[in-house]
Amino acid sequence: MPHIQLPEGLQGIRGPLAFRPETAKPLNELAETLLHAPNSLPAGDRELIATYVSYLNDCYFCQTVHGAIAAAHLAGDEDLVKRVKADFQHADISAKLKALLVVAGKVQRGGKHVTATDIEKARQAGATDTEIHDTVLIAAAFCMYNRYVDGLATWQPQDEALYRERGKKTAREGYVQMSREYIENTELKPQGA
Amino acid sequence: MPHIQLPEGLQGIRGPLAFRPETAKPLNELAETLLHAPNSLPAGDRELIATYVSYLNDCYFCQTVHGAIAAAHLAGDEDLVKRVKADFQHADISAKLKALLVVAGKVQRGGKHVTATDIEKARQAGATDTEIHDTVLIAAAFCMYNRYVDGLATWQPQDEALYRERGKKTAREGYVQMSREYIENTELKPQGA
Repeated sequence: MPHIQLPEGLQGIRGPLAFRPETAKPLNELAETLLHAPNSLPAGDRELIATYVSYLNDCYFCQTVHGAIAAAHLAGDEDLVKRVKADFQHADISAKLKALLVVAGKVQRGGKHVTATDIEKARQAGATDTEIHDTVLIAAAFCMYNRYVDGLATWQPQDEALYRERGKKTAREGYVQMSREYIENTELKPQGA
Repeated sequence: MPHIQLPEGLQGIRGPLAFRPETAKPLNELAETLLHAPNSLPAGDRELIATYVSYLNDCYFCQTVHGAIAAAHLAGDEDLVKRVKADFQHADISAKLKALLVVAGKVQRGGKHVTATDIEKARQAGATDTEIHDTVLIAAAFCMYNRYVDGLATWQPQDEALYRERGKKTAREGYVQMSREYIENTELKPQGA
């Protein structure tokens, strides 16, 4: 049971986002900019970084839904998502993404764990400063989203099919549209919204 | 030296915010809503929660600047900020804030550490669902901001006087105004902004 009275029937982060639309707005805009907006890093790579960090933080909802979004961007390759979580160094991904996942894993443990050598390796594998910046911020942001979802003990049904459908929709429409939809479908929206 | 080429002369988070205005916007709006907008939790209490979590994450910039903002809200009481960091259970703060700091400390370790008992104690001390929500999200958000600041190895001058002045200004003007100011003062602003 969630620690606070959240609107019913909304999984994971969607409950607290609908509960507090004022914070939902920047939280969804941040996800939209980092994960869905045009970027030299493909959306699939960015979602794999989000999924990997959520896996390290043991957040069932985030690793499952972002894993499903990643798979939707990667022609449905759910096995690749699983391999990245289990052992990305031996997964069929680019050397650049491997180097960025090393940085993301360090950020998950704490910002000071990232070394100049980690960054140099990412750069040698072709990462730009903006791609390094975005990797650090995606990893840091999921240390927030994961704690938000689990720190309120949100409802997280263990039904992969449900996440698969949600993943396809979010991969297509992004985060801001999704947000509008469930905030408008709850009675908790602020007056006049 | 920062891991990526950031605009010079901007301390801590201000460097990466100016480097990437697209993500700066939601990051500052989130801070504004959580820490500065009207709320039943006083701004001083919210800044103490942010300071405490940043202290636990060992982020010099964030704990110093938010400590200075907290002190500015608390009639300049810098000793109280230090006592909260060192041993909040014996600091001169409300029972409600103590219970919320327990929740925040659990969130810093990971969302699943928060127990129903922690929440019940906060509720018995007078915390509302929105105050519990905001505490969890402030703590989670600083697990992001701290990792963002340290994961990019930003410039963090060890000069408390400098943070004291910045703290007074932010306590007065909030986060969105501050953001405009340094983004407009950098050459990296996007065309047409």
